[in-house]
Amino acid sequence: MSETATNDTNGKELDPKDQKNGDQNGEDDKKETQPPVKEMRAVVLTGFGGVKTVKVLKRPEPQLSEGEVLIRVKACGLNFPDLMLRQGVIDNPPKAKVPFIMGFECAGEIEAVGEGVTGLRVGDRVSALCESKAWAELVTVNAKYVYKIPAKMSFEDAVAVTLNYAVAYALLFNVGNLKSDQTVFIHSVGGGVGQALAQLAKTVGNVTVIGTASKHKHESISNVTNLLDHSTDYVQEIKKISPEGVDLVLDCLCGEDANKGYNLVKPMGRYVFLRRTSKLTTGETKSVLSLAKFWWSTDKVSPMRLFDDNKTLSGFNLRQLLYQQGKHEYVRDIVERVYKLYSEGQIKPLVDSSWALEDVGDAMQKLHGRKNVGKIVLDPFKEPIPRPPEEVVEKKRKGSAKEKDNKEKEKENKDSKEKSGQSGDNGDKKAEDGAENSK
Amino acid sequence: MSETATNDTNGKELDPKDQKNGDQNGEDDKKETQPPVKEMRAVVLTGFGGVKTVKVLKRPEPQLSEGEVLIRVKACGLNFPDLMLRQGVIDNPPKAKVPFIMGFECAGEIEAVGEGVTGLRVGDRVSALCESKAWAELVTVNAKYVYKIPAKMSFEDAVAVTLNYAVAYALLFNVGNLKSDQTVFIHSVGGGVGQALAQLAKTVGNVTVIGTASKHKHESISNVTNLLDHSTDYVQEIKKISPEGVDLVLDCLCGEDANKGYNLVKPMGRYVFLRRTSKLTTGETKSVLSLAKFWWSTDKVSPMRLFDDNKTLSGFNLRQLLYQQGKHEYVRDIVERVYKLYSEGQIKPLVDSSWALEDVGDAMQKLHGRKNVGKIVLDPFKEPIPRPPEEVVEKKRKGSAKEKDNKEKEKENKDSKEKSGQSGDNGDKKAEDGAENSK
Repeated sequence: MSETATNDTNGKELDPKDQKNGDQNGEDDKKETQPPVKEMRAVVLTGFGGVKTVKVLKRPEPQLSEGEVLIRVKACGLNFPDLMLRQGVIDNPPKAKVPFIMGFECAGEIEAVGEGVTGLRVGDRVSALCESKAWAELVTVNAKYVYKIPAKMSFEDAVAVTLNYAVAYALLFNVGNLKSDQTVFIHSVGGGVGQALAQLAKTVGNVTVIGTASKHKHESISNVTNLLDHSTDYVQEIKKISPEGVDLVLDCLCGEDANKGYNLVKPMGRYVFLRRTSKLTTGETKSVLSLAKFWWSTDKVSPMRLFDDNKTLSGFNLRQLLYQQGKHEYVRDIVERVYKLYSEGQIKPLVDSSWALEDVGDAMQKLHGRKNVGKIVLDPFKEPIPRPPEEVVEKKRKGSAKEKDNKEKEKENKDSKEKSGQSGDNGDKKAEDGAENSK
Repeated sequence: MSETATNDTNGKELDPKDQKNGDQNGEDDKKETQPPVKEMRAVVLTGFGGVKTVKVLKRPEPQLSEGEVLIRVKACGLNFPDLMLRQGVIDNPPKAKVPFIMGFECAGEIEAVGEGVTGLRVGDRVSALCESKAWAELVTVNAKYVYKIPAKMSFEDAVAVTLNYAVAYALLFNVGNLKSDQTVFIHSVGGGVGQALAQLAKTVGNVTVIGTASKHKHESISNVTNLLDHSTDYVQEIKKISPEGVDLVLDCLCGEDANKGYNLVKPMGRYVFLRRTSKLTTGETKSVLSLAKFWWSTDKVSPMRLFDDNKTLSGFNLRQLLYQQGKHEYVRDIVERVYKLYSEGQIKPLVDSSWALEDVGDAMQKLHGRKNVGKIVLDPFKEPIPRPPEEVVEKKRKGSAKEKDNKEKEKENKDSKEKSGQSGDNGDKKAEDGAENSK
């Protein structure tokens, strides 16, 4: 995938005045000798921090490499780790500096198939768990991370199902070993993974599902036996419901609540970490330092304590599994099991809301505030929400590649070429390539 | 169960000269007014330290309480934790000071059934996982820790199967979740639990069993795909056999080798601690301190590391499960599954050797030195090994209660009564009662 023709604005807002500069520097002659670069809209992270660091920009269409497919994206999934990535608290993957196209999850139709790809054809309806770059009109993905979706599954359902239910399935059955008549406690059961966990747990006979969620979400949440308000003393509530403790705790909070949760686990029970932390900062900066401090304050566990307690501690991290540990066949097996459950009607994904790429900031804020019940979807074909006049300058840049005027494109090309001589930009390029290679 | 009539000699050797003292102190008159106390031989821990702290002494026959059965013991199991208990490095259970009758595991015939016991009758052939006191001619055990053995199972096989295979079964299937085509690494595969693990792992399709054992044992060990010498660099050997790592590590060594073992686990794999430590001292004293230091030096694990590594850490401690955590029904289920496998011929326990109660010291030294392949059994009916003359004084005390002369018995009774006024002895009594109550 070639990224040399253009580059991002590195977080700088485009000003209509600046766009004229491109006409005055002699780049036009050079441009005419090259074929026009096809462009697409993409959600680009231009710096680490708040939602303003995320912008919809024009990027060159990706070039297909061996082993990859090119997908015309119809729906994208927004996930909690995307917020952490934006704040700069995930450094792996991708080990990339900004700018880069965000997005781990999408669904769409295959437009082209690279050399060496078997089992996938142009026109196939698929979902993909990309290492990054899924939030764009087009994406190239190594075929090992691409899954054919069932005929009756919409693209929206595909992004609501693939990641969340695969994670939930692995947590409950591969890691958590959930059996009938057991009790499972799910932190934040109202989220996308939380709802997937609750539904999948209910496919096992006589499982008691205890979950926490904000009070205002309670009416929208189903498949939970005992729904608790996260702001209350949930430990005491759970002890009333299940005095012996629970068989399985699925913790997406980590940190300060880990000990509470561990103590709720009954002998022979399991405690599973499914996320590093939920403690995102609300400010634009300093997030890395404050989070690092938070992580280190998490208690370490003596293996001897596990021995005396007859307990199990597990971690599950799908991205590590896919991109660092080479377990793509393992994940494919799980995705296929989940699709089968979908086709059988045993699971019904819950979509909270769907947003235009340009409204990704609002979508992120909804997820950050835990206002969602179910999956938050980005739709490249959706019209953005109309904005007040002061936001119009930025919004002008939305729309398809055809709408963009040539001068603006030339300006971006020029900017990128100027920057390519700078060490910082080279670093970005290398890091992004590195992330791509590790797919 | 009454323990007031007599008490132990607290480690002091009985001297034939001392036995006359009992005749001279007027105790005879008192004695005549009471029914004679029936006595039995028992292996008593008289102090924490080396094998000399373990003695065969006369103890009153246990009194049956509600919910218990009285078992005529035909075979006893010697296990690694017995060595740790002797050295004073296990304080729970039993939270007892010396002296007390040792022994966690036995098999025999029910001689009496207490009130409230259902499903067990006089004459039933059973095994029992007692909290203590199993190494005696008779033992009373709460019925919830007693299991009827299959008709064709010898008592020797019963003690070779019950504990070791129940532990191994729980480790492989309830904790370790072993599946076909996986690879398991077993430390000390030549021991009783090790051989049980290897056999049970082989009941799963296409499982690769890698184990370590001392070179001299290799010929006697079966059911192991790759047998390594523990003194070599087994990590490198395993990496050659299974470059991706192993699915399951069963660690009875803990401590310094824990990190080596953890790093051998592949993503989605499991690391299980099945013992606190193997580092027993060879001296008679200071064992507690040196072991405490050893335990603390064991690395603690950050839960975030598990998350990034997609790994699981578990502990399994059968005694905690039975006596502290009330999971006796859970254990019964496992024991019954194991007996079924035995009856089907899928497992064949390996008995290393059988010893008289009086030879328990030699038996312990064999286990301590890891010279055994399979289970070490104590047999209350077996004749002790003839000893050189200097050991005869102690050996005179072997044999059935009937062989013991009345003077000696009176001496012991008197000793015990004299000591009962001392605070130390009271403390012993209380602690032992406490251990009994917690059954």
